[in-house]
Parts: sequence; C-alpha cells; structure tokens
Amino acid sequence: MSYTLYYWPGLQGRGEFVRLALEEAGAPYVDTALELVKNGGGVPAIMRYLDGGDVTRPPFAPPFLKSGRLLIGQTANILYYIGGRHGLAPRDEAARLWVNQLQLTVADFTGEGHDTHHPIAVSLTYSQQKKEALRRTRHFLDERVPRFFDYFETVIERNRSRGPWMAGARLSYADLSLAQVLAWMGYAFPKTTRKALEKRAGLARLQEAAFTRPRIERYLLSKRRLAFNNDDVFRHYAELGE
Amino acid sequence: MSYTLYYWPGLQGRGEFVRLALEEAGAPYVDTALELVKNGGGVPAIMRYLDGGDVTRPPFAPPFLKSGRLLIGQTANILYYIGGRHGLAPRDEAARLWVNQLQLTVADFTGEGHDTHHPIAVSLTYSQQKKEALRRTRHFLDERVPRFFDYFETVIERNRSRGPWMAGARLSYADLSLAQVLAWMGYAFPKTTRKALEKRAGLARLQEAAFTRPRIERYLLSKRRLAFNNDDVFRHYAELGE
Repeated sequence: MSYTLYYWPGLQGRGEFVRLALEEAGAPYVDTALELVKNGGGVPAIMRYLDGGDVTRPPFAPPFLKSGRLLIGQTANILYYIGGRHGLAPRDEAARLWVNQLQLTVADFTGEGHDTHHPIAVSLTYSQQKKEALRRTRHFLDERVPRFFDYFETVIERNRSRGPWMAGARLSYADLSLAQVLAWMGYAFPKTTRKALEKRAGLARLQEAAFTRPRIERYLLSKRRLAFNNDDVFRHYAELGE
Repeated sequence: MSYTLYYWPGLQGRGEFVRLALEEAGAPYVDTALELVKNGGGVPAIMRYLDGGDVTRPPFAPPFLKSGRLLIGQTANILYYIGGRHGLAPRDEAARLWVNQLQLTVADFTGEGHDTHHPIAVSLTYSQQKKEALRRTRHFLDERVPRFFDYFETVIERNRSRGPWMAGARLSYADLSLAQVLAWMGYAFPKTTRKALEKRAGLARLQEAAFTRPRIERYLLSKRRLAFNNDDVFRHYAELGE
C-alpha cells in the first residue's frame, strides 16, 4: 500500500522527518510537495484537508500522512505509526515509548530552533523581528544547544547496545530525526555545530551512521531531497555571526 | 499498582495534564511535588533522575512518571501510556492515534502560551524580556488563539458522537488537557478567553463537562490542586491589558 505525504512545497521542514522514515523503510509514497498542482499536488492538496468541511479528523497543520483511509497528523504521531509498521521502532512497549519520548524531545529542540528566527510571531517576517531574533539566538546557542546536545549524547552513551543509536541495537525513526536536526544545525549555525560535534563523538557518529544508510544516502543524493534554504525550520543568517 | 509523578513543586505546569488523567482514572499515585524533601519529594526527587548517572533512559525534563520499572517522560507520551491502561483513550488504533494527535496539538498551543511571557529565553526572568513579551502576546491573542480555538471547536463539531468531547462518545485524556488549557487561558487572559468561549459553544461545553466529572470536581476542590500563579505555564500580567 502506498502512502501520501502532505507538506508545504519548497522546504524540507518537519515533513523531512517523515520522508527520512519512509525512505529508510523503502515504503512507496507520493510526496504532494513534489507534484504539480494540476496533478493534485502543491498547496491546494494541503488546503483541501485543512479547510475541507467534510474532513472528520482534520489536521491542524502539515505534515500529515494518508495511509489508506487513515489521515494522520502531528509529526511524532505519524512516525509512531510508520515506525510500528516498518521496523523503525522496537516492538516491546517500553522501548517503543522510549523512542516516542526521544522523538518528542527532538521535536522540542526543533521548535526552539525555529523560534530563533521567529521569536515574536509566525505571521511576521524575519526582518520584522530581527532584533528579538538576534537576542533569542544568542541564548539558544549558548544555553539550549549544549543542554539538548548533552542530553542526546548521554542517551547514546547509556544505550547498552553500544552501537551508534539512541535506543537499542537498531536504527529507529528518532535516530533519523536527530540526524536531520544535526544536519539543519550544520547549515544554520556551522561554527557552533562543528565545535559541538567535536566534543560529542556520539552525536557525530550517529549522524554519520544514519546518513550513510544505503537508502538514506541514495535519497540525500536524489532530486527529492531539497536543498537547505531560508524558508526552512532552521535558517542561516550571516548577521547571527556564523 | 501505584504511580509516582515527578514534577516541579509550586505550580500546576505540564504535570497537571498527567494529574488530571490519573485523577479521572482513580489511579493511586504519589505526587512528589507535594511530598517533603525529607520524605523523598521536592526538587531533589526530580534531580536524581535528571542528573543520576545510572538512569538508563533519562528524561530531558519533568513531568515524568514511574510505573513499576518503567520511567516515562514527555507529557503526551505519559498520557498515551496512561490512556491505554485506564480507558482514557479509545481502543482501536485509528482513534488512539487521533487522540494522540489532538494531545500534541494541545501541547503546541501550551508551548505558544508559555512563550508569551518568555519569548527570548527561559533563563531570563519575565521582566528581562517584557518588551518582547508584550509584542508576542498581542500576536498570540489576535492570531494564534483564534486559530487554535477554531480548530478545536471544529473538531468537537465534527465528532459524529455529538457529545461534548473531541474524539468519540467517551472522555479522553486530550479532552482533560484541553479543559486545563482553557482554564489556564481564563486565568491568564480573562477578557479574550471569555469572549472566545462565548463564540465557541463547543469549547465552553467541553470544559464544563470535563471539570464537573465527579472525580475531577473533587480533585479541583482538593488541596492537591494548586492555585494558578505566575510561576506557571500560563501567567496573568496586568500590563498585557487583561
């Protein structure tokens, strides 16, 4: 059975967490962000579900995933579903909750990363909140990045399986999401990220291991993988000193 | 079996989402926030898990819940676990994912509510970011509150069971969390919230129905329920014009 992923065109965004899981699973999926509007893709494909008066379980925002008759929203929720079906999460309940917990912590970090360039309102442009963005970014890089990075490094260190992953001996969707966040960080804040990864061998190894999985590597080299850009969740602004 | 809930003393906070679910379930639990330090409660009870070098699956932050040998972090994850064990979530997979999706959307709104008074950094006090807080609050009340409230109202309207709840014919933990958020909003932004609920009968009815459940009502009148205060996620500051 094929999935359909709905996400805004033109950026990786939170849709990328879902894409990486589907790519690693080798699961067939239609990515509406890459389809022409006349073929049912683009923004109208999303709005049809956000605004459609006949959608029984409407999503609040993309990404959302169609799987047969199911329409599933919220990134961590989508990944919980995919992970269970494609071996990207452990089978036993405790470990599956643990992976979900890690994913939600990756999501928290992602939200904080986004708010560095939009600390006041998503309805304003970056330049309309630049002063506040500079201030927030300083705190993010000095306080929040070390806190989160130390946390994930500790998680990897304490994983008794001693492999590159956060939970158990096998790759989970949370590992893919963490690798994606590290890649974003490298684009947005290259100096801070390079230094941070030099000091945290576990994180560097996890990213390398995740992004060299054959299917992931093939995906990253494909046209389906969009380039980092400043419409994305993590953005590079030179005036932030990186 | 008894649970132990770990959360910061002195505020409702995100721990309250878990408390409401446990209270509605009639599940016995120890709330370390209400225990003296000498009896194993208070902040040291939390730090032991955040900083303890022997914790295999460390939480990033409270709330977290101990259930037998399981240690579960991230609010939505805790609720997913409790909901499944105590009939506070539907049994079939699709509906359970839907409740999780709603909970994560409540969590997103909660995060945005928190950031109205802390738009720059959690390490700064409110007064150190008051100017930015005023600016963010205006956008929150004018743009985000209507957007989220309309969404949840629509969810209630489209629930085919036509009761007061968001998902199906029975109360779920997401309903309790939404009721809590509405109560917080009434404390933090009374004018906006009163007007918003006058226009959205579904939300007002859900809150009333949730908070008059016998066990919930008893809890809300008990000493275990702390008063709203300005250490909490949602805060009342007169200068914000409410």
